[in-house]
Amino acid sequence: MTRTTLLIPGPTPLPPEVLHAMDRQMLNHRGPVFGRMMREILDGLGTIFQTTNEIIPLSSSGTGGLEASVVNFLSAGDRVLSVNNGSFCERWAAIAEQYGVRVDRVNAEWGQPTPLGAVAERVRADARREYRAVLVTQSETSTGVLNDVRGVREALGDHPALLMVDGISSIGAVPLDTDGWGVDIAVTGSQKALMSPPGLAFVSVSERAWQAAERSTLPKFYFDLRKARAQVQAASPSTPFTPAMSIVFAVHAAVGLILREGLPQVFERHRRLARTTRAGVRGMGLRTLAEDAYAVDTVTPVLMPDGVQGRAVVARARDAYDVVLGAGIGRLDQATIRIGHLGYMTPEWLVAGLEALGRSLGDLGHPVETNAGVAAARKALEAAARR
Amino acid sequence: MTRTTLLIPGPTPLPPEVLHAMDRQMLNHRGPVFGRMMREILDGLGTIFQTTNEIIPLSSSGTGGLEASVVNFLSAGDRVLSVNNGSFCERWAAIAEQYGVRVDRVNAEWGQPTPLGAVAERVRADARREYRAVLVTQSETSTGVLNDVRGVREALGDHPALLMVDGISSIGAVPLDTDGWGVDIAVTGSQKALMSPPGLAFVSVSERAWQAAERSTLPKFYFDLRKARAQVQAASPSTPFTPAMSIVFAVHAAVGLILREGLPQVFERHRRLARTTRAGVRGMGLRTLAEDAYAVDTVTPVLMPDGVQGRAVVARARDAYDVVLGAGIGRLDQATIRIGHLGYMTPEWLVAGLEALGRSLGDLGHPVETNAGVAAARKALEAAARR
Repeated sequence: MTRTTLLIPGPTPLPPEVLHAMDRQMLNHRGPVFGRMMREILDGLGTIFQTTNEIIPLSSSGTGGLEASVVNFLSAGDRVLSVNNGSFCERWAAIAEQYGVRVDRVNAEWGQPTPLGAVAERVRADARREYRAVLVTQSETSTGVLNDVRGVREALGDHPALLMVDGISSIGAVPLDTDGWGVDIAVTGSQKALMSPPGLAFVSVSERAWQAAERSTLPKFYFDLRKARAQVQAASPSTPFTPAMSIVFAVHAAVGLILREGLPQVFERHRRLARTTRAGVRGMGLRTLAEDAYAVDTVTPVLMPDGVQGRAVVARARDAYDVVLGAGIGRLDQATIRIGHLGYMTPEWLVAGLEALGRSLGDLGHPVETNAGVAAARKALEAAARR
Repeated sequence: MTRTTLLIPGPTPLPPEVLHAMDRQMLNHRGPVFGRMMREILDGLGTIFQTTNEIIPLSSSGTGGLEASVVNFLSAGDRVLSVNNGSFCERWAAIAEQYGVRVDRVNAEWGQPTPLGAVAERVRADARREYRAVLVTQSETSTGVLNDVRGVREALGDHPALLMVDGISSIGAVPLDTDGWGVDIAVTGSQKALMSPPGLAFVSVSERAWQAAERSTLPKFYFDLRKARAQVQAASPSTPFTPAMSIVFAVHAAVGLILREGLPQVFERHRRLARTTRAGVRGMGLRTLAEDAYAVDTVTPVLMPDGVQGRAVVARARDAYDVVLGAGIGRLDQATIRIGHLGYMTPEWLVAGLEALGRSLGDLGHPVETNAGVAAARKALEAAARR
């Protein structure tokens, strides 16, 4: 059996310890053994989310967590501000609109940084303080842009809107100072920096947000966070509905790995791999979509040369080299391919991925400097190791 | 390490093959390998659901599937009829009411059978044919009653309401003839008869129900089945949001096991274990909540003797004998304990569970004929083996 190299920005490869943690029989999800495990996970996630806020587990993908942030804290007719420069920003806005929330978008071109000036302007213009929330996608996985959550907080000033952050592909990979930056809602999923299979979402909720929840009139049942909160606060923490138990086992192991490595070390590892990727891409003569000043350390969208279809490159890398690159998303469908480098990722896999990218382009009649790219990646790795 | 005996009605113990299937690295959920696996699962589930209708996977617990059945096929203000004789019937009704659907309940006492006469009466009384759906919980896990889906279908006559069945703890354990009985919506979860960890729900949808979906105006995003249908119909079937992949691996293995054993044989195995349980319970001088004529073959709620608190018995069995029995639910909280016997369950575990139940009652000062109960259970097993 070949060992496929998985370089998509989630699901990410699982560390052996996480894979083995799932080799465990079912438990009673209302019993004390499960309760202790859930307590350890939620405590550990507090460190990773950098918060003392309560963290609520949901059995869903990250998108379920985004839906929970809408239906629990907003009402139909409410106005929110969407900081919007990519596909996942737009998904969150679409969820809000589906529930009758009025969404004002502050747009930037896909691949461009957070439009902080425009955010500040909209906030100032909201003299009646109608915005109930501002939605920010920290790691915009479609473009590779790191949105500036702290900057948005500053632009908000003393405006009472809740600051909601989609941290699905960022929390645990790049810093999100939930408490320091006053983030009211932060959402992540199990299959990104948490190095676990998909199936669980986690939502941290500030006291201010819990107060807003009491005023929310949107319908909810499966994603009712107040019902879930009661279960989290129980002597033996659980969930209102049967949780995705094997994924709980996996996350329990993964949180332990992250805490043992140390959060600053985990962030540094992601920075190192991101630099390696960008050096490799440029070394072979290609360009990244986002500039380094605002590129996120979890995924690197690479611009395809003129006349090259991104999907063809992804297919070639898969079929010829057993390397799974991410396809472009939405309007960047063919213009980019994406290299994921978050969670459990080794320099070796990354270099193999860069090499497969270069060769695939050559195979499709668009030769690039593959060897120079690989050499540049290795040099970046060595430079990082020396520091 | 002790081997805990898990006798709750889900999550159920995993067969070794299912546990091992999860020892597998992540895949691209948009790639061909995952697509083939999903196609095999959905085809196999067609056999288990006894339907040619499309089956839609959701990454959620079974309750998410029930919510999907409300938000996709109904609108606020619609009227539905809830056949209501237990906690899970009531949960589904509560979901519908949360979304503004008007629910008429046809109630029976908890532990009593489907009130078919009353259903027929309500249907006749609905001269304007306002009911959009009838909600039936096939295996009412709180009471151990098997609700008569076929009987409800007959009571409906030519009324156009959609027939919706909560088959979460029944599909794959007791017969649900989805197509033969004209079931429009059938819902199950991965952690019951499908012998897999919790984390996935499956919803089968008839053509008539898809037509109703076009008229539904309730808000939905994560549970939008029409969006999911497009992914299922793709050349490489997938899901709109990242699926709980390890659970997909598990269900793939489990569906294979069920099909190899044969659906009639699986049903017969459940019947045999249910008879064994009831014989054991009565052999020690206890009573089941539901009469055999309408008892379900997946779970047996046992009435506690006067003065005995069910939760104390559950705690004693767990702490002294490492046997996890189900606690009573809702108003049956202390009046019953529940023995689950669905999915991957062996006669040996069941007998150990019965023995622990009897001993725990004795330990708490309410001695029963434990040995006679165990003997009766063994006799029932042998009788079944001879047939």
